[in-house]
Amino acid sequence: MTSPQTTTGTRVGIVGAGPAGLMLSHLLARAGVDNIVLDRRSHEEISHTHRAGILEQPSVDMLTQTGVDGRIGELGDEHEGIDLRFGGESHLLHFPELVGATVTLYAQNEVFVDLAAARARDGGDVRFETEVTEVLDVDSDRPGVRFRSLADGADPDEVHELRCDLLIGADGSRSVVRRALADGGSQDLSHEYPFAWFGILAEAPKSSPELIYARHERGFALISQRSETVQRMYFQCDPGEKPEDWSDDRIWSELQARVSGPDGFELKTGPIFDRTVLPFRSFVRQPMSRGSVFLAGDAAHTVPPTGAKGLNLAFADVRVLADAILAWADTGTREKLDGYQDTALRRVWKAQNFSFWMTSMLHTRADATAFENRRILGELESVTGSRFGMQHLAEQYTGWPNS
Amino acid sequence: MTSPQTTTGTRVGIVGAGPAGLMLSHLLARAGVDNIVLDRRSHEEISHTHRAGILEQPSVDMLTQTGVDGRIGELGDEHEGIDLRFGGESHLLHFPELVGATVTLYAQNEVFVDLAAARARDGGDVRFETEVTEVLDVDSDRPGVRFRSLADGADPDEVHELRCDLLIGADGSRSVVRRALADGGSQDLSHEYPFAWFGILAEAPKSSPELIYARHERGFALISQRSETVQRMYFQCDPGEKPEDWSDDRIWSELQARVSGPDGFELKTGPIFDRTVLPFRSFVRQPMSRGSVFLAGDAAHTVPPTGAKGLNLAFADVRVLADAILAWADTGTREKLDGYQDTALRRVWKAQNFSFWMTSMLHTRADATAFENRRILGELESVTGSRFGMQHLAEQYTGWPNS
Repeated sequence: MTSPQTTTGTRVGIVGAGPAGLMLSHLLARAGVDNIVLDRRSHEEISHTHRAGILEQPSVDMLTQTGVDGRIGELGDEHEGIDLRFGGESHLLHFPELVGATVTLYAQNEVFVDLAAARARDGGDVRFETEVTEVLDVDSDRPGVRFRSLADGADPDEVHELRCDLLIGADGSRSVVRRALADGGSQDLSHEYPFAWFGILAEAPKSSPELIYARHERGFALISQRSETVQRMYFQCDPGEKPEDWSDDRIWSELQARVSGPDGFELKTGPIFDRTVLPFRSFVRQPMSRGSVFLAGDAAHTVPPTGAKGLNLAFADVRVLADAILAWADTGTREKLDGYQDTALRRVWKAQNFSFWMTSMLHTRADATAFENRRILGELESVTGSRFGMQHLAEQYTGWPNS
Repeated sequence: MTSPQTTTGTRVGIVGAGPAGLMLSHLLARAGVDNIVLDRRSHEEISHTHRAGILEQPSVDMLTQTGVDGRIGELGDEHEGIDLRFGGESHLLHFPELVGATVTLYAQNEVFVDLAAARARDGGDVRFETEVTEVLDVDSDRPGVRFRSLADGADPDEVHELRCDLLIGADGSRSVVRRALADGGSQDLSHEYPFAWFGILAEAPKSSPELIYARHERGFALISQRSETVQRMYFQCDPGEKPEDWSDDRIWSELQARVSGPDGFELKTGPIFDRTVLPFRSFVRQPMSRGSVFLAGDAAHTVPPTGAKGLNLAFADVRVLADAILAWADTGTREKLDGYQDTALRRVWKAQNFSFWMTSMLHTRADATAFENRRILGELESVTGSRFGMQHLAEQYTGWPNS
């Protein structure tokens, strides 16, 4: 191993400048805890990776109450419920009435832009286009990473080193930090789904004020919104589906079929300007930490999008982790740091279950028996036919109280 | 076809003298609607077929409010909740507090004894040891059955006929009436489970005031009660398990293992005097009627015992069917009769779903992944960690309001 060109030190090294990494950096900096964030991608790339975001109230609060006074108040779209549609009928779950809560639609890339702006405003050390090539000494009390710059004009062969007291892997589902933590005691638990989502962005007015989660014998569909003039919609498809095989007409007719019913509900259509196939799976790395190295957000777990839990779970991790780090920085005690993984995992598994439940209840499977398909309609009727059932779903969708 | 020895006529012919058939007969007779009940088994046989019963409040009310003033008030054991035990910890769901309801433990064979006594008291025509050999003219307006007597001294070759305006199949999971209704338009929907229940009756004091539903990595266990001195318990086993291979010691140690935990919970043991392996499955025949022939209870559907819904669902069918028959007898309109199957099936599928859910959540499967096992703990935590979750389960367990 050649010597690094430069070695930098900080208290908390954070790999990944997505919402999890930046939010952690932001919370630590506010309390005066030095930290440095590294991300392989450019600011430009992350801010243009469109990802839907449905934020629980505590996630919104984390932004607005900590001075990330970006544009969520202006651009975020508060939603009071969802529409569960099955058997060709709509069933509205009104969250404020059921559980006294709402959610806010605000794209994840916008959350990123706001957080990056807040970090820049506050003089944060966030290094984009900076690739971590190696994770160092994970079992020591001074772990670190080697990294190189991918920026124009930088020498990609020049390797630098960052050393820290605590190293955080917030580097997403392909986390290099997670890979470095794997050992005999770690487990990767996962579940594969035999379907994917075909997602589109279209220039069209809103078809519905609330998100529609539809189960139809042709498969799941989600009618979402992005703005008054741009809509986001998804429908369940085969993971091998090719976006280019689908004309606008074919897409609209498939979406319309899945939400049709005796009420004559019709989608408002328009030109489709973005189409992607999103495969998804459930994944959890256990434990979520080792010594002084911690995982947060997608680096530790991914959930199917049906439960809208991804970003919220990342923020919940960060909330618990920031609290533990601040206690450690303040008093030197590691008790909360050591408790991080248990606290975080309890919520992770509830969210995995909720996401699995919503996914199983709303998607169809080619290998399902007639019994199974009919049973699931009974399940949807049990939920929507009962105030307790709707409250149980609404509480999980809008987020559990913080532990 | 030889001519029958005798032909009898009645308004409503009921095949099956289990709780469903007798309750229907009782309700009809109270309103002056003539009916005859036939059952292959003897009174003795049915009354000695031990079957646990957990009665929802509306089921208890059906008995006590219609003059079946048997012994349920005296021998029935009102239960205020269940204990969901997992991860070695107990989680009590207190039904009155959660949903303002209770359930009553009262064995199904005792319900039968009470109903049979009420029918005898009121001069009902209930013929035991009477085997239906053939179902006649199901598509006519005068269907019927051929039957013969199996009683001592009767000639088993002598065939009799019963003709009626309405024929009811309440003849259990191997229903001969159901078989006669099968045609191109009917569907048998079913789900098989890769496990069974090993059930015991033991002379022992109660181990717990409430039923314990335990999930353990070794499998499910149910600690139930029958009286102060006799207890009923079950544990999940392989469907091929042989009762005779299990000594008392081995059974107690298996049961104890599945409910053990840091709280030191210990079963109270004693001599085991009954042991059986109960395989189970979910089954629904659709539609539940054809013309003037109707199915009720186990003849139309069976549920796994985990949700305690079997007898309650049979009584719910009977409630809807009796109401429809009385309207028809009163006014001659068939509207409610024709609506019977839709009304009944809505509840059936909610009950199927609840039973499937309880079964899946509490049993273990050899082919389950680590993800699946951990997710289910997250599910149990989601339920027991939330008042809404507990209410949703409690409402389903104690019974939906009647439709």
